Amino acid sequence: MSASYTESGVNIAAADRAKKLMWEAVQATHGSEVLAGMGAFAGVFDASSIQKMYKPTLVASTDGVGTKTLIAVQAGRFDTIGYDLVNHCVNDLLTQGAKPLFFMDYLAMGKLDPVQAATIVRSVAAACQAIGCTLLGGETAEMPDVYLPGAFDLAGTIIGVVEQDALVERRPLRSPLQGDVLLGLPSSGLHTNGYSLARRVFAPYALDTVFPELGESLVDALLRPHRCYLHEIQTLSEHTGIFIKGIAHITGGGFEGNVARILPPGRQAVIETNAWTVPPLFQLIARLGQVTREEMYRAFNMGIGMVLVVSPEAVEHAQRVLPELLAVGYITEGEGVQLIGPL
Amino acid sequence: MSASYTESGVNIAAADRAKKLMWEAVQATHGSEVLAGMGAFAGVFDASSIQKMYKPTLVASTDGVGTKTLIAVQAGRFDTIGYDLVNHCVNDLLTQGAKPLFFMDYLAMGKLDPVQAATIVRSVAAACQAIGCTLLGGETAEMPDVYLPGAFDLAGTIIGVVEQDALVERRPLRSPLQGDVLLGLPSSGLHTNGYSLARRVFAPYALDTVFPELGESLVDALLRPHRCYLHEIQTLSEHTGIFIKGIAHITGGGFEGNVARILPPGRQAVIETNAWTVPPLFQLIARLGQVTREEMYRAFNMGIGMVLVVSPEAVEHAQRVLPELLAVGYITEGEGVQLIGPL
Repeated sequence: MSASYTESGVNIAAADRAKKLMWEAVQATHGSEVLAGMGAFAGVFDASSIQKMYKPTLVASTDGVGTKTLIAVQAGRFDTIGYDLVNHCVNDLLTQGAKPLFFMDYLAMGKLDPVQAATIVRSVAAACQAIGCTLLGGETAEMPDVYLPGAFDLAGTIIGVVEQDALVERRPLRSPLQGDVLLGLPSSGLHTNGYSLARRVFAPYALDTVFPELGESLVDALLRPHRCYLHEIQTLSEHTGIFIKGIAHITGGGFEGNVARILPPGRQAVIETNAWTVPPLFQLIARLGQVTREEMYRAFNMGIGMVLVVSPEAVEHAQRVLPELLAVGYITEGEGVQLIGPL
Repeated sequence: MSASYTESGVNIAAADRAKKLMWEAVQATHGSEVLAGMGAFAGVFDASSIQKMYKPTLVASTDGVGTKTLIAVQAGRFDTIGYDLVNHCVNDLLTQGAKPLFFMDYLAMGKLDPVQAATIVRSVAAACQAIGCTLLGGETAEMPDVYLPGAFDLAGTIIGVVEQDALVERRPLRSPLQGDVLLGLPSSGLHTNGYSLARRVFAPYALDTVFPELGESLVDALLRPHRCYLHEIQTLSEHTGIFIKGIAHITGGGFEGNVARILPPGRQAVIETNAWTVPPLFQLIARLGQVTREEMYRAFNMGIGMVLVVSPEAVEHAQRVLPELLAVGYITEGEGVQLIGPL
């Protein structure tokens, strides 16, 4: 036996080719703050903008896109999954009131296809560029015997910044009070959660199936990227002076898992599920899979991607600025999250 | 059919249990700089220490541990792989002269075993704590149909900081010159590179095999954690005033792939492979696998984990401070990296 690295499943030439193919898109996200980027052992980002702040804090979030990657593989579409990743992470930053500085991606698969890998990373770069965030670095790993054939995983870390006094969590006047209103922002689809359940439900159907209630192919509905709420949250908090007391990103765990994370002790969030129409994709999943109401609301966002807590007086102003804001519930005394109303 | 999230392979209760089991170890890395940690949508880190710097730059690196995870799975040992991850990332930071601030981890597998996942994350936390780095956040993902049974992937992102004037890459007197010396720091083993090749070579042998030349079991040799060079680089650069012109972390691609990354145009690095004794583990892999010399030096660190460039006058001082520093080569005119000498 004479063993080589390539025979053992790791192809350095393929990795080099992938890097070349993604280079330009990554570079396009680099402004003058980037002092070292691709090719360096570590990316270097000029922090002088942070230095000029009053009490700067760094905010960081790491996330993946779950098994939405498998839909991308099945469909052979790799040019949107990066939006899912970046937007998921940006939304997590927004819950602290932070704005993004730079992003780091991690892509791994069993056998490296340079074109596919570069397409994925280019979509990460495009999503960063769309919001003025630098894609400072990342890693593409070929991992034979770890991933199932054709499968890949995509994760990333976003770094942002916010004034300490503007941290949503630490505002002196924080603490949602009884009577405060929960405002919801519509989601664009499943975002990046519940895909293992959705894939199971849709397993008997071809991806190009057009269900009448969807009015588009299943694959278009399932691959629609995770919506980014940067513009909406910035508009509300920076331009209107509306005081946001809490922001929850509705991801895995649904309302119960995520709104609970922003509640102080002694406060309960009541979500009125009849306050909005659950989009057809979720209704279809519930019907085809005979998924219980509890399970649906735990696995999916059900049409609401972000929940904001504001005082009752702020509701009208907020809705005038962002007409799509829906009152989806309120704060009362108690603990945890209660869902009331029908599916 | 009645589908549920758990039946589809995602167990929210298991994820909650894993979080509880890792909580204490993660918290132990948190000092007063952490304004929000586990449980929050995004971690928040007080940046006032950065603000006090003269010209601060943020430095970031994302890496994984490759298929070393498969050795951990085969051996059922999950308490050291976090050291591999953190130390790999720290060493990448060091190449820019930066010191670590905080770390974010990403762990993913097909079926979440709460105890195993918590053990892995606790080892990440322990590695962070050992070097005074905060484990600010992370993500543990259950990805059915993406990972092979039992396999997991572990990646992470480190964020550090350095004065712009102290950036190794941007020092005004940088540029390795003809005659400059390459100093090597010994590695502790394979670190986190070449495992796909090593696994192939050792596939016919049980992990508890004790090869006479190793003097320990194969599993002990293969799982030895990636060495962290933080203390050594800090000692050299902060306490002796020795001017380091370049630092290369010898990872995938070996000397040729990595020393090349710190060479300016017109400069060649010559590595004299007879300057040190290649450790028995590498010799064993070469012999058992009949791996060529070129392949060995491309896939493995061959016993040298970091290479530093210094002027000839600094060598004696550096070696007095760190006696394990070995002169492993020199800079000359030309391009790229040349290996001379026997295996």
